[in-house]
Amino acid sequence: MAALDAILNDIDRDLDGALERLFAFLRIESISTDPAYAGACREAAGWLARDLTALGFETGIHETSLYPVVLAHRPKPGTPHVLFYGHYDVQPVDPLDLWETKPFEPRIAEGPDGQKRIVGRGASDDKGQVMTFVEACRAHIAMSGELPCGVTILVEGAEENGSQGLPEWVAENKDKLGCDVVLVCDTSMWDARTPAITTSLRGLCYFEVKVTCADRDLHSGFFGGAARNPIHVLSKIVADLHDADGRVTIPGFYDGVHERPPEVLEQWRGLGLTPEKFLGPIGLKEPAGERGRMPIELIQSRPACDVNGIIGGYTGEGTKTVIASTASAKVSFRLVDDQDPQALARSFEAFVRARVPADCSVEVITYKGSRAVSLPFDMPELALAKRALAEEWGAEAVTVGAGGSIPIVGDFKRILDRNTLLIGFGLDDDRIHSPNEKYDLRSFHKGTRSWARILAAFGEAGRG
Amino acid sequence: MAALDAILNDIDRDLDGALERLFAFLRIESISTDPAYAGACREAAGWLARDLTALGFETGIHETSLYPVVLAHRPKPGTPHVLFYGHYDVQPVDPLDLWETKPFEPRIAEGPDGQKRIVGRGASDDKGQVMTFVEACRAHIAMSGELPCGVTILVEGAEENGSQGLPEWVAENKDKLGCDVVLVCDTSMWDARTPAITTSLRGLCYFEVKVTCADRDLHSGFFGGAARNPIHVLSKIVADLHDADGRVTIPGFYDGVHERPPEVLEQWRGLGLTPEKFLGPIGLKEPAGERGRMPIELIQSRPACDVNGIIGGYTGEGTKTVIASTASAKVSFRLVDDQDPQALARSFEAFVRARVPADCSVEVITYKGSRAVSLPFDMPELALAKRALAEEWGAEAVTVGAGGSIPIVGDFKRILDRNTLLIGFGLDDDRIHSPNEKYDLRSFHKGTRSWARILAAFGEAGRG
Repeated sequence: MAALDAILNDIDRDLDGALERLFAFLRIESISTDPAYAGACREAAGWLARDLTALGFETGIHETSLYPVVLAHRPKPGTPHVLFYGHYDVQPVDPLDLWETKPFEPRIAEGPDGQKRIVGRGASDDKGQVMTFVEACRAHIAMSGELPCGVTILVEGAEENGSQGLPEWVAENKDKLGCDVVLVCDTSMWDARTPAITTSLRGLCYFEVKVTCADRDLHSGFFGGAARNPIHVLSKIVADLHDADGRVTIPGFYDGVHERPPEVLEQWRGLGLTPEKFLGPIGLKEPAGERGRMPIELIQSRPACDVNGIIGGYTGEGTKTVIASTASAKVSFRLVDDQDPQALARSFEAFVRARVPADCSVEVITYKGSRAVSLPFDMPELALAKRALAEEWGAEAVTVGAGGSIPIVGDFKRILDRNTLLIGFGLDDDRIHSPNEKYDLRSFHKGTRSWARILAAFGEAGRG
Repeated sequence: MAALDAILNDIDRDLDGALERLFAFLRIESISTDPAYAGACREAAGWLARDLTALGFETGIHETSLYPVVLAHRPKPGTPHVLFYGHYDVQPVDPLDLWETKPFEPRIAEGPDGQKRIVGRGASDDKGQVMTFVEACRAHIAMSGELPCGVTILVEGAEENGSQGLPEWVAENKDKLGCDVVLVCDTSMWDARTPAITTSLRGLCYFEVKVTCADRDLHSGFFGGAARNPIHVLSKIVADLHDADGRVTIPGFYDGVHERPPEVLEQWRGLGLTPEKFLGPIGLKEPAGERGRMPIELIQSRPACDVNGIIGGYTGEGTKTVIASTASAKVSFRLVDDQDPQALARSFEAFVRARVPADCSVEVITYKGSRAVSLPFDMPELALAKRALAEEWGAEAVTVGAGGSIPIVGDFKRILDRNTLLIGFGLDDDRIHSPNEKYDLRSFHKGTRSWARILAAFGEAGRG
């Protein structure tokens, strides 16, 4: 084993090489939600599999019901074994005209904060984050000829598509996924200087609601005031989802939601994350959602409902006097604690149907549903990772709950009975899922160094 | 003066000639909304001016700010004088692939009802309807050498483009437009056997509302429950527009709306137009809008509000966990009686702004606003026209309000202080503004005979 310093120095020395590899990965247009990019998704899997094979991993590409997973093993008997999970697929790029440069032509730019940043779709979510781990492995192998502990890397291609097919694949292949702990690099730091380990995740239920009234588009002069307008019906459904205090009104929605103990609320209060501080950077200042709760409380410990999209009728330039036949909305819920996605699916559909007139119809599509996840605070890997992160960043790592959802973490617990450490180097302004997605060069570089330290610490602990 | 029978016989005898002339008019691609067809619009004006000149009208082509109007005079001192209005421009033809034959190659076809029909763009709206009046004049002149009353014909070329430039031209040329009554042939019959005179038209106000919350799209996992969602804000605005009884809730909205007298309501009730009959053909059966009112009452005598389009966030296939930065809706109002478009614009904007959180913003664009128009039921020309129509069709003419808007009718009232009789022979299935527009041959033939009778009746009344 080379000394950790030599490995960290190798990471510093090879930063340009690491960026070249990341850029090659980022150029592949692996959008999993649009079938037009199916070929690119498979190309991304192939690219990664070749890279891991070159690193000495025993690597395979395994089909699932949608896109294949890349599975790579490099065991080291007598040491702990970690399972690293990430995804090679990316979000769609629309609206394309808001991108300053082409989304799949990655580049280094300087941010308004003077920091260099990697700009392109997937730079942060999740190709950039995945490559921090791969580059950490590369440095260990380059300097020592081996990894400090056993490593299995599992990178899927349908995370942005609800990880379609992955839970089934994990269940059928659990013998290939033996490990002591799961590592995921798909989350954010507390801020640009403070690392974070995410110890809880909100669950996600995602629906589409399509209301149909008349069997054709109508002229609003002829029919206006007499024929039902599906945009009105849908807007009423959306408006009814929240009460005046910002609470979700679906019956039973808060079943299984627990209040946080006073000491946790006190710790959060101590962070000083006021509505102005939290919302100011995105041009807002008044918190939405449940009245009287802190922003951090809302996103980490409370469920939420958001309409992610709505469309109906004429949406072009100028005017058209039409009453549409249909209107539709995409509605998602973030779940916490013991909220049950299946119960929510039932009560949401009943809530919607109760608001559709008898001569109209509604279709409710359920895209996905996952429970919230939380980790035990006393797991030894958590302490090891916190120490390694503190050494790299010179700041104590914060343990946080995350507002977003990574459903597969719940599946790892359920199927593999293993806990997951979520350690990511993204920042809140990375614009993941938006135009001009970026990943700070510092996130990429120090993220790689962080993983090198964490792997070394795990190997060291295994020897002790 | 020849006897009316001789004139009607001449119309029957010359039907093929009349169709030839109409087809020549229909072959001209006078689409006013597309500058590529500017030459064709002027060609249509020229064609009509030549035809009216040949009939002995003193005819001129007058420029407006967009396309010229054709103005033709044939006065007859000592008789009433009518101003006939129509338009020579037509709607665009897209989607072209839905036309069974080329839109500007008119033909006679047999409809599913066994009726012969004229098929082509403009067959009904408005070239076919305009030519019913011109052919009626032609028959009078052919058989009597003169018209039974004074006639001015005004045919514009920008009706499908919002009559751009026409109100200004009418105001500047009111000395050329002296008349006792205005006649318009741009509306429909009650049904294929029952003529109708439209005695009121709803006005129209059209707005776009664009709500902006955060200054960028957000990840709904990160921000859901803490950041304001513009789709929620907009949906609440839309939902708030109507109360549970279907009434519009904007303060002062019903100012200037008058209840119809009991005898009018009774006449409407006698028509037997149940919600099932009115809405059944479009796949609905329960009336929307103000509770407890008949469909015919709602569309003819009551104002209405419809959201004509809404869009925000992710609207593609599948899912995206985004909170949009903006969401927008197109909202239009149909006005009746004395509702004031400018007052509505003010109260609508205030209504919207009151529902936008302080740290969000909203833009309200006003596209257009026109008052409703209604005629006095006791005008003598109405009784004369009703009698003439009854003699032609063997069925009493229904006096109706139209749900749609023809803004120039309000301008005639305002500028010329003259009332307008709207008498048209279109049918609800004419597909005006759609592919395969048609005009029943019976509409064209008996429409011509109807105008011949109406003109004769006006001349007769003037002599009496």
